[in-house]
Amino acid sequence: MKRIAVLGSTGSIGRQALDIIHALPDQLCVAGLAGGSNLELLQRQIDEFRPGVFYSSVRLETGCGAEFVSMEEMVSHPDVDVVIVATAGKAGLSPTLAALRAGKTVALASKEVLVMAGEIVVREASLHQAHIIPVDSEHSAIWQCLQGEDSRPRRLLLTASGGPFYRYSQSQLAKVTPEQALRHPVWKMGRKVTIDSATLMNKGLEVIEAHWLFSLPFDSISVLVHPQSIVHSMVEFTDGSLKAQLGHPDMRLPIQYALSYPERWTNTELPHLDWNNVQNLSFEPADYDRFPGLKTAVDAGKSGGTYPAVLCAADEVAVDLFLSHRISFTDIARVGQGALEHHESVAHPSLEDILAADAWARGYTERFFSCDGERPRHRTDVEAGRSR
Amino acid sequence: MKRIAVLGSTGSIGRQALDIIHALPDQLCVAGLAGGSNLELLQRQIDEFRPGVFYSSVRLETGCGAEFVSMEEMVSHPDVDVVIVATAGKAGLSPTLAALRAGKTVALASKEVLVMAGEIVVREASLHQAHIIPVDSEHSAIWQCLQGEDSRPRRLLLTASGGPFYRYSQSQLAKVTPEQALRHPVWKMGRKVTIDSATLMNKGLEVIEAHWLFSLPFDSISVLVHPQSIVHSMVEFTDGSLKAQLGHPDMRLPIQYALSYPERWTNTELPHLDWNNVQNLSFEPADYDRFPGLKTAVDAGKSGGTYPAVLCAADEVAVDLFLSHRISFTDIARVGQGALEHHESVAHPSLEDILAADAWARGYTERFFSCDGERPRHRTDVEAGRSR
Repeated sequence: MKRIAVLGSTGSIGRQALDIIHALPDQLCVAGLAGGSNLELLQRQIDEFRPGVFYSSVRLETGCGAEFVSMEEMVSHPDVDVVIVATAGKAGLSPTLAALRAGKTVALASKEVLVMAGEIVVREASLHQAHIIPVDSEHSAIWQCLQGEDSRPRRLLLTASGGPFYRYSQSQLAKVTPEQALRHPVWKMGRKVTIDSATLMNKGLEVIEAHWLFSLPFDSISVLVHPQSIVHSMVEFTDGSLKAQLGHPDMRLPIQYALSYPERWTNTELPHLDWNNVQNLSFEPADYDRFPGLKTAVDAGKSGGTYPAVLCAADEVAVDLFLSHRISFTDIARVGQGALEHHESVAHPSLEDILAADAWARGYTERFFSCDGERPRHRTDVEAGRSR
Repeated sequence: MKRIAVLGSTGSIGRQALDIIHALPDQLCVAGLAGGSNLELLQRQIDEFRPGVFYSSVRLETGCGAEFVSMEEMVSHPDVDVVIVATAGKAGLSPTLAALRAGKTVALASKEVLVMAGEIVVREASLHQAHIIPVDSEHSAIWQCLQGEDSRPRRLLLTASGGPFYRYSQSQLAKVTPEQALRHPVWKMGRKVTIDSATLMNKGLEVIEAHWLFSLPFDSISVLVHPQSIVHSMVEFTDGSLKAQLGHPDMRLPIQYALSYPERWTNTELPHLDWNNVQNLSFEPADYDRFPGLKTAVDAGKSGGTYPAVLCAADEVAVDLFLSHRISFTDIARVGQGALEHHESVAHPSLEDILAADAWARGYTERFFSCDGERPRHRTDVEAGRSR
């Protein structure tokens, strides 16, 4: 029986993780739950799963004896074996480090943790011999392909659905609305990830994550657009052989694998791929020109230091601005690029350096935009930033 | 340094195995060579690789001090670590058993060994804790996908190129000539395997091999036609996740993996897949009606006993008859089916039972056909056998 703490239990990944735990009562139980602003759902989850400890942004009164603790206390609690980090934004950073320092296994679904603080996170995991198991479908795929392989791979091939606008021209992209962008053709995900997926910024951040998770240089990580989202990623080995992991595009599969690892468990609620319906798998190199967010993110990863943290923060602000109709779809990547170009990076940053860079990027980006619902006042500045 | 004995060194797989050994002089050396009728090539191989022992069907005089031994003596020789069994037909059966009884690792490229005597071979390997590593691209793919996986897979998906005639109608198939059938669109292989590949009999025999190699029931082994031959096979696990092994269709890759296992070695002579050229991977269920050899072979495997040995022998005779223009392409499967229907199988056969079944099937099949180069005299008998 593995005892699980779910951070971000009311979000998309958190809810699906609880579905898995619910379906496998002989293998999994909930030791802790931490939610954000959706207090009503969190309350219901606490009532159903009866964790020993919980955390909520506003202190809840529970009738079932669950103890209110901080996320850092929760993840180092002796009753917790595996911590699922599925929080939004940078909220998972400190609890992830606390979990690793307590030697816990971290099932990592928060992109920002490794993108912002990959160097620190990987070092702490190594120091405390704690394991990070990826939950993202792409990184889970690579992790699965690497099982039983001792030699260093030659190349990682991250697949990308390409999002709903992969065939759009530059001018069509400029006119994409938030409503259109929130309708992802394949994956059911949170709003932020869905927009990042449409700009391909998400894939760039995943390249940075893959760099830290699998200790490979950026030049050994490629992106392939694969609209069917059946091949979740691939690994090429030094002898020319490749392995791919495939499956129905359903986040519950990689979530369950992160919890069952190194075993695999039968779960009748999970879908099996029907090869009568899968007739074609197509692949093409990613277009870095029409989707500059991808290149921006990979470049930020290569530059290292506090650049990736700045991009994460600027992108989060930019996605919010886009969702509230204040900047255009194609502005999102420009905002990130503009912030990177004005940032003075710190090499081998401490957690404080990273959080300072995050705060700087938010302040810098927000300063460009009025809060009165108008189009950006400094639009030309953003574009000037891009053309430097 | 692994010391390799190559049985069948003058055949297609044997020559490619020697290419690999030649390219990796720090990791591999030749301890023994055994060839068939191509004495001139065997002589050159002995001169180049200078094995300690050799076997030839007609005793060669070597100038380099290599000792003439039987294949059984060779495979149990203390200087041999890995035995590549790449002989044609049933010639590999006895040496494979001898190698396993001596605790040697067998890199198995001969289909007949497991198809004819799977039960005995698997039992001897287990008894003597000897390993069988598959060399066939499909089984190597499955073997690679199973590395690091402890749980029993849910399904194996063997891919098939479909051969050169997969879109042919029944009447077009009946008119296929040996010359057409020998031109395989993707794989460079020996003549027998190339014809079996065009009838899909080969894939059926591979299903039987997979059954024995991976201890899975026949109903858990499917065939998918995949004309690009990039995905070499797949494994579906109980949780709905699948792994595939991919690569350039080049037999040297699985041969090298069988020798490097569990490591992977860089070999600059091996091709790497270029994703700029791989744009589409297509899959479809195999057509058992137009390619009855596939169904015949799988049914023979399910029936077990001496049936698979009978099919192997009858198919070998039938392919020879087709290559000498004495029966039609579509007759090949009928010959196999006819032999199976007249055979009295022995359950859990001994090696003697298997060899007796092989001899019976050859005799039975040859009795149908005259040796004067005419079309089969008993054509109606063959067709009658099919329609029962």
